Amino acid sequence: MSSIPYKSALIVGTGPGISASLARQLSQAGLKVAVAARNVDKLQGLVEDTGAQAFAVEATDPKDVADLFASVEAGIGVPEVVVYNASGRVRGAIVDLDPEEVRRAIEVSAYGGFLVVQQAARRLLPLGKGAILLTGATASVKGFANSSSFAIGKFGLRGLAQSTARELAPKGIHVAHFVIDGGVRGAARPDPADRPDSTLDPDGIAQSYLTVLAQPRSAWSWEVELRPWVESF
Amino acid sequence: MSSIPYKSALIVGTGPGISASLARQLSQAGLKVAVAARNVDKLQGLVEDTGAQAFAVEATDPKDVADLFASVEAGIGVPEVVVYNASGRVRGAIVDLDPEEVRRAIEVSAYGGFLVVQQAARRLLPLGKGAILLTGATASVKGFANSSSFAIGKFGLRGLAQSTARELAPKGIHVAHFVIDGGVRGAARPDPADRPDSTLDPDGIAQSYLTVLAQPRSAWSWEVELRPWVESF
Amino acid sequence: MSSIPYKSALIVGTGPGISASLARQLSQAGLKVAVAARNVDKLQGLVEDTGAQAFAVEATDPKDVADLFASVEAGIGVPEVVVYNASGRVRGAIVDLDPEEVRRAIEVSAYGGFLVVQQAARRLLPLGKGAILLTGATASVKGFANSSSFAIGKFGLRGLAQSTARELAPKGIHVAHFVIDGGVRGAARPDPADRPDSTLDPDGIAQSYLTVLAQPRSAWSWEVELRPWVESF
Amino acid sequence: MSSIPYKSALIVGTGPGISASLARQLSQAGLKVAVAARNVDKLQGLVEDTGAQAFAVEATDPKDVADLFASVEAGIGVPEVVVYNASGRVRGAIVDLDPEEVRRAIEVSAYGGFLVVQQAARRLLPLGKGAILLTGATASVKGFANSSSFAIGKFGLRGLAQSTARELAPKGIHVAHFVIDGGVRGAARPDPADRPDSTLDPDGIAQSYLTVLAQPRSAWSWEVELRPWVESF
Repeated sequence: MSSIPYKSALIVGTGPGISASLARQLSQAGLKVAVAARNVDKLQGLVEDTGAQAFAVEATDPKDVADLFASVEAGIGVPEVVVYNASGRVRGAIVDLDPEEVRRAIEVSAYGGFLVVQQAARRLLPLGKGAILLTGATASVKGFANSSSFAIGKFGLRGLAQSTARELAPKGIHVAHFVIDGGVRGAARPDPADRPDSTLDPDGIAQSYLTVLAQPRSAWSWEVELRPWVESF
Repeated sequence: MSSIPYKSALIVGTGPGISASLARQLSQAGLKVAVAARNVDKLQGLVEDTGAQAFAVEATDPKDVADLFASVEAGIGVPEVVVYNASGRVRGAIVDLDPEEVRRAIEVSAYGGFLVVQQAARRLLPLGKGAILLTGATASVKGFANSSSFAIGKFGLRGLAQSTARELAPKGIHVAHFVIDGGVRGAARPDPADRPDSTLDPDGIAQSYLTVLAQPRSAWSWEVELRPWVESF
Repeated sequence: MSSIPYKSALIVGTGPGISASLARQLSQAGLKVAVAARNVDKLQGLVEDTGAQAFAVEATDPKDVADLFASVEAGIGVPEVVVYNASGRVRGAIVDLDPEEVRRAIEVSAYGGFLVVQQAARRLLPLGKGAILLTGATASVKGFANSSSFAIGKFGLRGLAQSTARELAPKGIHVAHFVIDGGVRGAARPDPADRPDSTLDPDGIAQSYLTVLAQPRSAWSWEVELRPWVESF
Repeated sequence: MSSIPYKSALIVGTGPGISASLARQLSQAGLKVAVAARNVDKLQGLVEDTGAQAFAVEATDPKDVADLFASVEAGIGVPEVVVYNASGRVRGAIVDLDPEEVRRAIEVSAYGGFLVVQQAARRLLPLGKGAILLTGATASVKGFANSSSFAIGKFGLRGLAQSTARELAPKGIHVAHFVIDGGVRGAARPDPADRPDSTLDPDGIAQSYLTVLAQPRSAWSWEVELRPWVESF
């Protein structure tokens, strides 16, 4: 099986869960890893665990995102793999939502993704290679009641992914979108003892991200969906 | 065939084209019609044509949208049909786009839709009836290269439509999303003489909006796609 | 609103429900109507009700379908509207199904549709006009557990609909596919008193078929989905 | 990364291309491999190459398929991985197609898949583990003009895949469907020199099949789509 043809990775929206598993597995695969989040304190454990470099970023601010890429480039070189893993949501009936919170949620889920993909594309196009991975959710393909802000943001991110896959793939940059269709296992959300593997193990998710990075360009996936074996869909 | 069970309509994002045809056909069907756009001067011809009342609105401003609904209610009563027909886009390779223009485009296409649906829902839920119609495009289901801002906004609006259809339909409010899959005929975009009906006639589009309004609640459409007979898809 | 530009219709797979409502509404709209089913005795009430001509047909037999079209043409002229409304299914876990029953179910749902569309296309292409309407189900877009035969047949019919829409629409023939997403009301399946309109009224379904027939060719639908207001989806 | 937790595999519909690459890679991963096709002579090179056992089968015949599984079980044990890779098509305008050829094409693409999945399920359910992989095409999700038989068959196979994924996954059997969206490279279809990797390398396709087999059950894919980097979609 092919190995991953990239030397460095940036993961935006880092926290426990998918991003931590990704940072670990990418490090183990030999890539230099940078992680970025609004609150850099939360990245401390991850940094100690993986040797990743940590950066603070407000992903919805164009200047902040541009600065992030400059800092990452100075720290580990151009990130050849860029993952956008941030999202925002406000739950509740549409009549009860606060408009400013909804605006913010959409910006975190979709507009921040745009800013990150834009900065990544500016650095990867000259190289003619690289990968951009965007993390979706069930809400990327199914808009649920009482979750309008998440539906807007996640549908929007999927639109970005599809548009930029069409735009950047023929220039050598692999854009892929992952539909994470189920609850992700974590400290706050352990796997129920009587239903083993009924939540998504972040390590299992990260494994599929890495297999996409290893795909030869003659057979790329644009979209991959992942769910626990017992999840209804 | 059933007739339309509503007395009044508000069309946001009015200009020539779909909104003008809708205003005319809804007036002819006996509804009182209000039209709203950022630039109210552009509505003058439509107002004279149909007797509709015109209102200025910045659809991405929560307070402005709330004020619009209050004014419309004072003018023609609670709008039982609400159409969101505004959208924003910036064309170009993702690396060349201006981030602020993209933010604005997403807000016009998707966030403005959220604000309008929210205000509509607040008034229609107490009535237990009403219809909310959202205008999509090819970009709602297919993200094209060099059109990332439009893909984000239109995918996002579709997410809003699906989420609120699931949320509001069981409460009596019909939410429907239209995928307008082709170029809309207009003064600036006439039908080519050698390919008759190869662009979407706004009157033909409006006709399908009205048939959706006339559907009995036992057989509602959530999504309708429309394209010219010769359009490739 | 435009009226229906066709003079005659053939409905294959007739029984109580959608086909009966269609026969009535098409008759009322002034079309000559022919109805066809395997068991012509079941059509008796419909014939008395609507004045439709009834024909026996085994829809999975190429010669029988060719003969049907010849007979219908002799009786009411070339049918300018052709509806395929037959389907087959065997319920049960895949391990328990009888292969011959599954083969039969797929043939009724999908292959019979092919034979009918082929005969229709042969007569409509020379006219350069006409409509072919195919009846789908929830199973057309969602394959359910313990319903593999229905999923194969209904997905297959949708493939036929999409392929022939692309092929025939630019030649003037309107192919449309309806996703009937819910239970259809009937003598054996009345609407529950405490959930009014929670099943699809066949008259409401037929109404949407007729509005599609009335669409101007500049704004045709290829697919329309219909569900009761309270149906979860 | 996890390794493949299965000991044996059966590939139905074998020829050069995807099946040959799969047979090689599965052998290299340590699985015993059986290959089956209508014409067993064509399998000779593959057998010599990989040490796979070869079997003749008419995949649309229920008895033949049952016999195949009995023979394979005797030869390499219960096949824990089963791949269906056969398909049939007749090209041409719908009015020109021979109905019997279309019936045959649908049976090879979809009904044969049903028979193979049924036999596989009967053997894998008692084990509570196993994988069933179904090969789709662009035509699985997009029905093209002049290709109605292929659209029916491939949409139908996707319906089977989705139905049985819902049915069998919670019982431990991983069903996955691959949308092969592009031309597959081969002796008769070499990669054009001026567009490197513009056709799907069968080894690249097989690589993704194997990564799906290695997914932990907490994060299974039901559908994976694969296309060359420069393929338009």
